Amino acid sequence: MSKPVVGIIMGSQSDLKIMKEAAEFLEEMSIPFELTVVSAHRTPQRMADYANAARGRGLKVIVAGAGGAAHLPGMVASFTTLPVIGVPIKSSNSIDGWDSVLSILQMPAGVPVATVALNGARNAGILAAQILSTENKSLAKKLQSFKTNLRKKVEQSFRSIEKKGWKES
Amino acid sequence: MSKPVVGIIMGSQSDLKIMKEAAEFLEEMSIPFELTVVSAHRTPQRMADYANAARGRGLKVIVAGAGGAAHLPGMVASFTTLPVIGVPIKSSNSIDGWDSVLSILQMPAGVPVATVALNGARNAGILAAQILSTENKSLAKKLQSFKTNLRKKVEQSFRSIEKKGWKES
Amino acid sequence: MSKPVVGIIMGSQSDLKIMKEAAEFLEEMSIPFELTVVSAHRTPQRMADYANAARGRGLKVIVAGAGGAAHLPGMVASFTTLPVIGVPIKSSNSIDGWDSVLSILQMPAGVPVATVALNGARNAGILAAQILSTENKSLAKKLQSFKTNLRKKVEQSFRSIEKKGWKES
Amino acid sequence: MSKPVVGIIMGSQSDLKIMKEAAEFLEEMSIPFELTVVSAHRTPQRMADYANAARGRGLKVIVAGAGGAAHLPGMVASFTTLPVIGVPIKSSNSIDGWDSVLSILQMPAGVPVATVALNGARNAGILAAQILSTENKSLAKKLQSFKTNLRKKVEQSFRSIEKKGWKES
Amino acid sequence: MSKPVVGIIMGSQSDLKIMKEAAEFLEEMSIPFELTVVSAHRTPQRMADYANAARGRGLKVIVAGAGGAAHLPGMVASFTTLPVIGVPIKSSNSIDGWDSVLSILQMPAGVPVATVALNGARNAGILAAQILSTENKSLAKKLQSFKTNLRKKVEQSFRSIEKKGWKES
Amino acid sequence: MSKPVVGIIMGSQSDLKIMKEAAEFLEEMSIPFELTVVSAHRTPQRMADYANAARGRGLKVIVAGAGGAAHLPGMVASFTTLPVIGVPIKSSNSIDGWDSVLSILQMPAGVPVATVALNGARNAGILAAQILSTENKSLAKKLQSFKTNLRKKVEQSFRSIEKKGWKES
Amino acid sequence: MSKPVVGIIMGSQSDLKIMKEAAEFLEEMSIPFELTVVSAHRTPQRMADYANAARGRGLKVIVAGAGGAAHLPGMVASFTTLPVIGVPIKSSNSIDGWDSVLSILQMPAGVPVATVALNGARNAGILAAQILSTENKSLAKKLQSFKTNLRKKVEQSFRSIEKKGWKES
Amino acid sequence: MSKPVVGIIMGSQSDLKIMKEAAEFLEEMSIPFELTVVSAHRTPQRMADYANAARGRGLKVIVAGAGGAAHLPGMVASFTTLPVIGVPIKSSNSIDGWDSVLSILQMPAGVPVATVALNGARNAGILAAQILSTENKSLAKKLQSFKTNLRKKVEQSFRSIEKKGWKES
Repeated sequence: MSKPVVGIIMGSQSDLKIMKEAAEFLEEMSIPFELTVVSAHRTPQRMADYANAARGRGLKVIVAGAGGAAHLPGMVASFTTLPVIGVPIKSSNSIDGWDSVLSILQMPAGVPVATVALNGARNAGILAAQILSTENKSLAKKLQSFKTNLRKKVEQSFRSIEKKGWKES
Repeated sequence: MSKPVVGIIMGSQSDLKIMKEAAEFLEEMSIPFELTVVSAHRTPQRMADYANAARGRGLKVIVAGAGGAAHLPGMVASFTTLPVIGVPIKSSNSIDGWDSVLSILQMPAGVPVATVALNGARNAGILAAQILSTENKSLAKKLQSFKTNLRKKVEQSFRSIEKKGWKES
Repeated sequence: MSKPVVGIIMGSQSDLKIMKEAAEFLEEMSIPFELTVVSAHRTPQRMADYANAARGRGLKVIVAGAGGAAHLPGMVASFTTLPVIGVPIKSSNSIDGWDSVLSILQMPAGVPVATVALNGARNAGILAAQILSTENKSLAKKLQSFKTNLRKKVEQSFRSIEKKGWKES
Repeated sequence: MSKPVVGIIMGSQSDLKIMKEAAEFLEEMSIPFELTVVSAHRTPQRMADYANAARGRGLKVIVAGAGGAAHLPGMVASFTTLPVIGVPIKSSNSIDGWDSVLSILQMPAGVPVATVALNGARNAGILAAQILSTENKSLAKKLQSFKTNLRKKVEQSFRSIEKKGWKES
Repeated sequence: MSKPVVGIIMGSQSDLKIMKEAAEFLEEMSIPFELTVVSAHRTPQRMADYANAARGRGLKVIVAGAGGAAHLPGMVASFTTLPVIGVPIKSSNSIDGWDSVLSILQMPAGVPVATVALNGARNAGILAAQILSTENKSLAKKLQSFKTNLRKKVEQSFRSIEKKGWKES
Repeated sequence: MSKPVVGIIMGSQSDLKIMKEAAEFLEEMSIPFELTVVSAHRTPQRMADYANAARGRGLKVIVAGAGGAAHLPGMVASFTTLPVIGVPIKSSNSIDGWDSVLSILQMPAGVPVATVALNGARNAGILAAQILSTENKSLAKKLQSFKTNLRKKVEQSFRSIEKKGWKES
Repeated sequence: MSKPVVGIIMGSQSDLKIMKEAAEFLEEMSIPFELTVVSAHRTPQRMADYANAARGRGLKVIVAGAGGAAHLPGMVASFTTLPVIGVPIKSSNSIDGWDSVLSILQMPAGVPVATVALNGARNAGILAAQILSTENKSLAKKLQSFKTNLRKKVEQSFRSIEKKGWKES
Repeated sequence: MSKPVVGIIMGSQSDLKIMKEAAEFLEEMSIPFELTVVSAHRTPQRMADYANAARGRGLKVIVAGAGGAAHLPGMVASFTTLPVIGVPIKSSNSIDGWDSVLSILQMPAGVPVATVALNGARNAGILAAQILSTENKSLAKKLQSFKTNLRKKVEQSFRSIEKKGWKES
């Protein structure tokens, strides 16, 4: 695999079952990435080191997922000028996911985080690819095909309903 | 001005007082952009045309702001594979901003919107610049300087407090 | 079956288990309808075509259900002057249904959506029938009978409790 | 004025400043309507009488606005089979409007209310007109013109911005 | 059983599993009561009749439970000057119970409902007894014993923990 | 003035501007009451003494208002078997009133508080009178007149609108 | 065991399964503590006695957990000048935990409660230890080791992912 | 002034108008403190340095205030084993304060923050003093006097109402 251009990080190994979906999309697009655990609250120095080194190591986008008082995406964004995509995760003891959504979204002026939907790791992967596609025509084409396939799946589903009738669908 | 690489759009002229902050940041960074009004609900065809043509016209990022049931960012993202940054705007009759935040953030798998904070247009401009910086070293440097300046302003403020004392600050 | 006068659409086949209840009510009332999948985010052109053609094809009411950042009802309403009934659906990864409720309800002045309760597809079917009944006396009578039956079912339940006693009910 | 086909009612005279917007739209469309105060909690018998007589008197749509624990729209809907459009109003001492939104929207299966946005009385008027337009071609045309004008106003605003530049707009 | 002094009503038979707890407490206190189903939306006339006749029939308190857009307690209060205790019920398709809580609690000035906690039917029964106890010394004594027993149960539980140790409790 | 039968208490003198409305209603009904400040958090012993003595001193109902983490109504209810009416107050630094509403409403089984709307002190006064009216026919009559007057005021307002026309109202 | 310096109390025995985690942490740190049930609403006098005696008995920190309208932590804080740590517990019939969070957090000026996350009893134990560590160097060292171990567990988890690959983790 | 034992920090100079209240209380208690600006997002290295050095420099408690996606208290707690008190601040563009409350409160197991009420800086100062009082008898006495004064102010206010009458108060 070539040198990773996307770094996928998450606050805890338990977030992997959600964050895998970002990795899977990047793999579908053949975009080289790395994936690891970086905890804002338990490994703050590792987080600072990771974020500070990211651009120099060739990363172009960071995807960071976390739950509860989710500080990882925003803190990584405080160290790097790379675009950081934040994935709010609905962890156990979360207050319905509001805590991670607001902790990631409501960043102060100067330090943005590109926030996606609750548990929206797949969309984080797609957004990373879209960012890379701005200077990569072949990737832009792949994303266009992906979009076409989304449409086709909807077409399949309405055709299936037409055929079977809505009662049987 | 060179050909715009960022398109800033908003659902209504009344959003301009917020969305101006995205434009101002891009101007500070000397990034060429365009700014216009595109309403998902009142000019849906114009929206489709705008989004469909965007990549071909040389745009690399779209920043879209809207309030209430804010469909503009998500619908633009449904037409284009460019990264779309959504700015939730707290309009009059909004239910505390929750409506625009959730309408922009909670996109289904397949069609991401990079959501920033409520009224966070300046951060949308910064995020657009960060995205462009992934393939533009001189812009990356400018962003690094911008980050350094953020730090320096904090340093000024704590020095000012040290000097005057907290009671007088 | 005669030419449909109600169009039931939904953003995804997974919404069918909820949206079926609208169809079932229309069937009870012998109102001809059609049902299909139209995704605002994955088939935006199909959505525009569907909405633009609706009145010409003889549809009188559109019932549209969607979850999450639910743009389908509002976007259909942006293309057509027919009444559009929106059904917020509590999808997986929804933030307790608030996202779809607010995305459908909080439409800007000029483009209304008649929103019903979360997962309230049956009520959407009833509302469609009520709209049609404004110019259809026989349908108005059927709706009156339906209302009478609602009352009778309550009467049955309190008689059953009276008979069995509340402890056994 | 001809016999009214839309009844606009509200829980309190203080709601008139919001509910006027429904009346104004109907007037623009030359749709005959009546407007009065009917309180679910202070004049429950009048409410029952009003709702029971509505269809017989020739009304085709009822628009009902109320704030707080807003029971008027739902209770009117419990008496009549006419379509009832509910307008949640953000009254003083409201909990941010959530109380009236949820009291109107979350009706049980069997008794729908077509809910519009918080303070969305103008949209209630438009929705009433759309309902009437399903059997009235000339009204359908007027609504189409209204929609075209919405689009033209957006076009004016983006042309004005283009001309003056975004800094001066 | 003597003539009932408390009327327990609920919007639907499905609420009985919650509302039973009010009945059980009144039974413990030997307070005569009646229990039935009265739906604001499906039997509005029955509701009006019930509320209008209540005081004349010797009822002194009404306990009314309902879910969703819960109009029963408030509408009963609009017809009678008896104290009405409202029990918000978390029904299926409820938005986390907020809908019934706010529909019952946020009554306008002039028409109060004594609201208890979500699903708090037992507390509704206790409150009804407290109201009756203001003119009934023997009932006041029973309530005092009930309160003493609440205290004793806590004492048992901390003694049990002391004895077994917290690890085994 | 005769011996008070209602005790109106509040957590802070700043709550008086809201809580006055309870006193004013009781005065209209000629119900003897007392009014004072009792703070759960700053005078806990006074609160316990007040609640413990209440029934013995001849009080029949306690109306307690408080804001923020509003513990006064619930704690008073923990000491006395009298009915306690809780008034949530939207104080400064409140989180939109949710804190006082939930702190008062969500009492555990065994210890009810009769909660009224946010800032609903007038309704607390009315509810206190309704409770007293269960054994007081002359008060019941007064409450019936009060209810009639509520209706008459609505009648005045709709007649005034009819006369002046809605545009001038 | 030496004389307890931390008192862990909870409103109900059913809270023990959550509150045990505070005890477990204190045990790990060899900090002597006591644990019992004290209910604000069912044993208010016991609560007052407990809080009033706490400092004199040698307690230095009180950890109090409660659900729903959670008054225990705040009321204990009203009696003692010891630091009180509040643990909001998501009980059955809770409105998503918001009730206990807001009842504990939103204390008025003058009477603080140190609130931790919903169900965050382990953190309450850690915070108690941190408070004690301000004058106890050996405990400070233990807490530093505990922090180091948190970091090491993260390191184990990312090494495990590196080794097995993210697909197998 | 002696060496500071409390460090008061805040994310931005604009927070000073709130955070001053913590400083004022410590001054009333003659507790030596320092106050400065430390931004998690704009000066992350300074934050790490501050937190890492805190215990060694003699600090015993850190009070940290921040608004929006408020990461400062939690990140400081990730570096130090000192007790950290978090003050959620309702900044402009905040979503009603929920963002800062949840970002500070909902810390993961292992890294607690002692959260006080929204804008509750005075309570943060009091809590810091309570923590210090666990090993400082003279401070404990001062806190007891402060508590007594809180009570006396309530006594003054109810005496003033008694004297003037509630209408004039």
